[in-house]
Parts: sequence; C-alpha cells; structure tokens
Amino acid sequence: MNGRLYVVGLGPADARWLTLEAQQALAEAQDVIGYAPYVARVPEREGQTRLSSDNRVEIDRAREALVRASAGRIVAVVSGGDPGVFAMAAAVFEAVDHGPREWRDLDIRVMPGVSAMQAAAARLGAPLGHDFCAISLSDNLKPWDVIEKRLEHAARGDFVIALYNPASRARPTRIADAFALLRRFLPGQTFVSLAKSVGREGEEMIFTQLDKVDPSQVDMSTLVLIGASGTRRIAREGARDWVYTSRKAN
Amino acid sequence: MNGRLYVVGLGPADARWLTLEAQQALAEAQDVIGYAPYVARVPEREGQTRLSSDNRVEIDRAREALVRASAGRIVAVVSGGDPGVFAMAAAVFEAVDHGPREWRDLDIRVMPGVSAMQAAAARLGAPLGHDFCAISLSDNLKPWDVIEKRLEHAARGDFVIALYNPASRARPTRIADAFALLRRFLPGQTFVSLAKSVGREGEEMIFTQLDKVDPSQVDMSTLVLIGASGTRRIAREGARDWVYTSRKAN
Repeated sequence: MNGRLYVVGLGPADARWLTLEAQQALAEAQDVIGYAPYVARVPEREGQTRLSSDNRVEIDRAREALVRASAGRIVAVVSGGDPGVFAMAAAVFEAVDHGPREWRDLDIRVMPGVSAMQAAAARLGAPLGHDFCAISLSDNLKPWDVIEKRLEHAARGDFVIALYNPASRARPTRIADAFALLRRFLPGQTFVSLAKSVGREGEEMIFTQLDKVDPSQVDMSTLVLIGASGTRRIAREGARDWVYTSRKAN
Repeated sequence: MNGRLYVVGLGPADARWLTLEAQQALAEAQDVIGYAPYVARVPEREGQTRLSSDNRVEIDRAREALVRASAGRIVAVVSGGDPGVFAMAAAVFEAVDHGPREWRDLDIRVMPGVSAMQAAAARLGAPLGHDFCAISLSDNLKPWDVIEKRLEHAARGDFVIALYNPASRARPTRIADAFALLRRFLPGQTFVSLAKSVGREGEEMIFTQLDKVDPSQVDMSTLVLIGASGTRRIAREGARDWVYTSRKAN
C-alpha cells in the first residue's frame, strides 16, 4: 500500500490562483478524480487517468479515490476553491472514518487553495479584514433550523458573513429566507454584495444592502457577502467602489 | 499617476503556497514593502527597492505604499497568509478612505493567498469542512467586550472557531480568558488544536480539548482551532490523528 491521495484545491477560477504545491501534485498524479468542471481545468497529461462525475456524489468520489490509493496509485481528488472549505476534504475523511481500517494507514495530503470568499473579497477590497464567518446554506445534509441558528448568531455577533451554496433547484427560496432572517437582527442598510462567477467569464459584482437585495439575482455561482457594523464603502468615480471592514470595532 | 499597488498574500510559509498571480506581481514590482520577515521571503531582484518595517505600523506601511504608487511606482505590499484576512489589505483601504482624494483613482489589486487557518486545517484533515468563523483576539484596535461577544455567539452558533493573534506581550492572559469564556458555552471535551508554525521550521500540532488546553502553550505563531459539535477525530496508529468536521449537523 504505497499509494498516496492528494486532495487538491484549484482555487475559484483559472490557474492564476493555483499554488506551486497544487501544480506539483497534479503533475505527479496518475489518477485525477473530481466533479467534471474541475477535472476539465487540470492540464491533460499522457498516461493520466481522468474520472469525472456529477456534483452530488462527493462521498462516492471520495471512496473511489481511496480505493485507488489503497491499490498503490497516486491519486488527486480535485476541488474548486479550497478543498478544506465546504468541499472534498471533509468528504474524504468522512469516507475514511466509516471505511475499512486500512484506509487510516494511507498517505493523504490536503493542499489548500484560495476559497471563493477570499477571491470575492480581493475583488471587492478587504471586506474580510475583520472577524467573519462562513455558512453553507445547503440543507442536503443538515436541517434548516441549524442554518437559521447559525445565521442568527452570526448576525448577533456582528460578524461579516460569507454565504456558500446560496441557491439550489431543490430549495429555491432559501436565500430569500436567509435574507429575511438576517433582517430581523441587522439594519436595513447593512452592506450586501453578490459576487458572481469571480475570476471567470461573466464575472459580476452587485453592491446592494440588506433591505434592497433581490434574491432572484443569486444563483449557484454567487458568493453572498454580508457586511458587519465596521464594513465601509469607499466611493469612486469611473470605477467600482471599494469595500473594507475596519480593524477597529464599529 | 500610472502607478499600481499590489497587495500580495505570501501564504503562511515558504513558496509552496504562493499563487501564480502573486509570483508575477512580485516579479513586476519596483518596490516591495512589508513587515521584515515577509519581505525576507520575497526573492531579491536587481533594481527592486525593499522596505522592511516593524509589525505594529501597518497603517504607516500602507500610506508609504500609496504615496509611492501615486508617484507612478509599481509597488507590492506583502503580507503573510491572505492579505484580506486580518492583514494588510484592510489597512491599505483604511488609509485610502482617510487619505487624499486622488488615492481613490489608484489601480489597487489585492491578491489572495492561503490563510493560516487553511494551512493548519489542511495539516489536520478537514476541520473547516463545515460552518466556521475566524476571530482575532487582538485588542489593539477593538475593545475586549466586542471580542467576548463574538466568542459567545460563535460558541452558541456551534461554529468551528479559528482564533488569530491569540497571544501578545501586552495582554498575555487573553487566550486564557477566551478559553474560560468558551467553557461556559461548550462541552469540556470540545476538540481544540494548537497549530504552531504551520509549514515552517518547528511545526508542531497539539491535539487537546477545551477543559485540558494549556494556554501557556499558545504563542504568537499559534493558530488555535476549536471544534464544533460535528468535529470528529480519526484515531491512527504510528501517525498523527486526522480531524474533520462532518457535513452533517451533529
């Protein structure tokens, strides 16, 4: 069992945000496994096996990768953004936790990447410059009331809030529900940005506020950022405004 | 005024976590400005000016960089980790906000990097695999009661918690105070890891729990991670355990 499993973050867009470590792992891997659009971003290399799958079957992808690594292969599971943030790394370790004992002896190396909120923040200025939290609105695996509890405490704690997975065909109203809940705890003029397709074709940044945001503008490619009391907007002429969160409280 | 200001994230350690975009900016910059240990990590290049300073004068560094960019220079402000997360990007935009009007016309580009919590998480497994927050314990710029409020809501919201700037000579007891506060809201067996000097010489990972953690083991190089109810530990033999946060609630 001399295989190895790399869990590689590709960042949110093209190669500009790829780390050196991730590049080396992709060059070394014999098998590349991931959701099809991520696998498509890995440069093709002769002799390398590529296995693409649908987005819903994270745990199956993780098991397939572990089986191959156990058989002695060098395997890269690829993930958009950072695999450690709402992505494949947790699925891999969950599969190990519930899998055969020998998977615990594997050489598994997680390679961090730039996450969607960091790329969006960089484009906007520095909205994550002070205390923040990240919440996934996906209720495939956790009940909605857990999400509601986290949104409430994020708002009451005056955190900048990054919302991942804000839209889905299964529950199209969840982002509207989240905004409605946040309005109970935060002022209407709280800064909101909808960062769409950051770093990719069709990138669009919408600047708005909590009492005006239009949930229908949020799609699967959108990272929603909600400001805190210390979040400030710098007006500019002929260019997109900048947004930052002051290091001072309030 | 054709200058340009890059705010560049170097990641938490050596070049392995540097992005392609950051490498290009460092190669292009005429002036490199930053806290001395970060400037020292940038490869020297003939004709490039290097300005190192003490860690406490972030806002002075930001102004110096803006003055130089205004004068037409291509300037890189360098930061460890991600400049957008408790680092130089917020200082730069704060300086712009309170500075001369013409600074708003500058071409400022923030280049995200791997932040300390992501590197620590990757080494541990996938503890940030589900909802999490990041809190700076530095009370240089915000009052301690704001930090207490955030810790309380982070705990009550059942977030995984990453604590930045946990130690300082000015307030050596603050990490002990933070642990004491968290113990009021979280079970004693809550997972805690102290990730020291991640990716650097002397890297050390301490695995412990909230009722046993020793605050004297926390220093300036430590990233403190507190687990949530869904955080699990995978026991291993002859190797460091893995930790991940389940994508399922509880």
